[in-house]
Amino acid sequence: MADLHAVLDAGFICHLGLVVDGGPMVVPTTYARDDDHLLVHGSAASQSLRAAKAGTPVCVTVTLVDGLVLARSIFNHSVNYRCAMVYGIPEVLVDPETKLAALRAISDHVAPGQWEYARPPSTKELAATMVLRLALDEASVKISEGPPDDDDADLTLAVWAGEVPLRTVRLDPVAAPGLPEGMAVPVHLATGLLAPGSEAARDLI
Amino acid sequence: MADLHAVLDAGFICHLGLVVDGGPMVVPTTYARDDDHLLVHGSAASQSLRAAKAGTPVCVTVTLVDGLVLARSIFNHSVNYRCAMVYGIPEVLVDPETKLAALRAISDHVAPGQWEYARPPSTKELAATMVLRLALDEASVKISEGPPDDDDADLTLAVWAGEVPLRTVRLDPVAAPGLPEGMAVPVHLATGLLAPGSEAARDLI
Repeated sequence: MADLHAVLDAGFICHLGLVVDGGPMVVPTTYARDDDHLLVHGSAASQSLRAAKAGTPVCVTVTLVDGLVLARSIFNHSVNYRCAMVYGIPEVLVDPETKLAALRAISDHVAPGQWEYARPPSTKELAATMVLRLALDEASVKISEGPPDDDDADLTLAVWAGEVPLRTVRLDPVAAPGLPEGMAVPVHLATGLLAPGSEAARDLI
Repeated sequence: MADLHAVLDAGFICHLGLVVDGGPMVVPTTYARDDDHLLVHGSAASQSLRAAKAGTPVCVTVTLVDGLVLARSIFNHSVNYRCAMVYGIPEVLVDPETKLAALRAISDHVAPGQWEYARPPSTKELAATMVLRLALDEASVKISEGPPDDDDADLTLAVWAGEVPLRTVRLDPVAAPGLPEGMAVPVHLATGLLAPGSEAARDLI
């Protein structure tokens, strides 16, 4: 369970899988973990979310790619990653207070500090947003890390082996057009660890 | 079509969605584009790939996250991303030559230079690998970019708005234990643009 929580907390984009008209559909969206539930966000108008509204099963997959694994053989090449998969039939949040709290959890997860800072959702905006709540009861985690797992017979080959780590970095904020002259980037955006799992590029080299 | 190709060529991890026992399953894996087909790689032993073998429809989704979009209202917050979704019933490659060529295409896409450098797959290894080939006939692309799309009424709020760009960067290669003393990282790994869409951290700041 600790691994599951850690992977879910380290990402902010999930791939939501549903069965629509008998076939699979996989759409990316944002999410947050609330204790032992996943909160998944979407537009009430989207086809995928409408399908979820009908009480159909979903699979929510969160994948964090940590590096390329370069082995001595092509076959043992792989990717280091952390992946969580959660299965179940989600609840569609209806009560406005519950929905607002869930949206806040997602906002606080993806962009900490913004909920208190930006204009809050209106009643109309809240209605146009759908939030699914999915228990973590049926979930699996897979973590692949470390050097390649080469065959013993390949260890003597004159082939370099190892890992090329990959990371997600945030660059400096880019202001939207039309901001008042000289308006500074707020402190929580300028210095916060914005987006789970991301780091400032300058801290990596 | 140009947009679709560009998104597929810029990523290397896809989320493969299938219907297994009536419910959705979404698994990450590597892929490459070969002209107007997608080549998706996996272990012949995996549950998801076995399901695909049965001629069931799949949805392959490739998502590249480009930034967090910070609006003046919570509701208009979003994510800048490029997403390709490909639907269809994939062909399972059986002919060894065709399969080998497909694996080479995936290897060349994910880690250019490695196919010629590392030990090639044996007949047994080739049999343990499954490659799906999916036509790009039924596909969609969605690209979200630029500053937030704020409501006119919010433009006068004293709220900073803009984008925090996110990028995938590669760090320096880490050697596996047991390499011969002094073995250098090969040139194609040290300087190549390893992993589509990734950049060296030092080039970003």
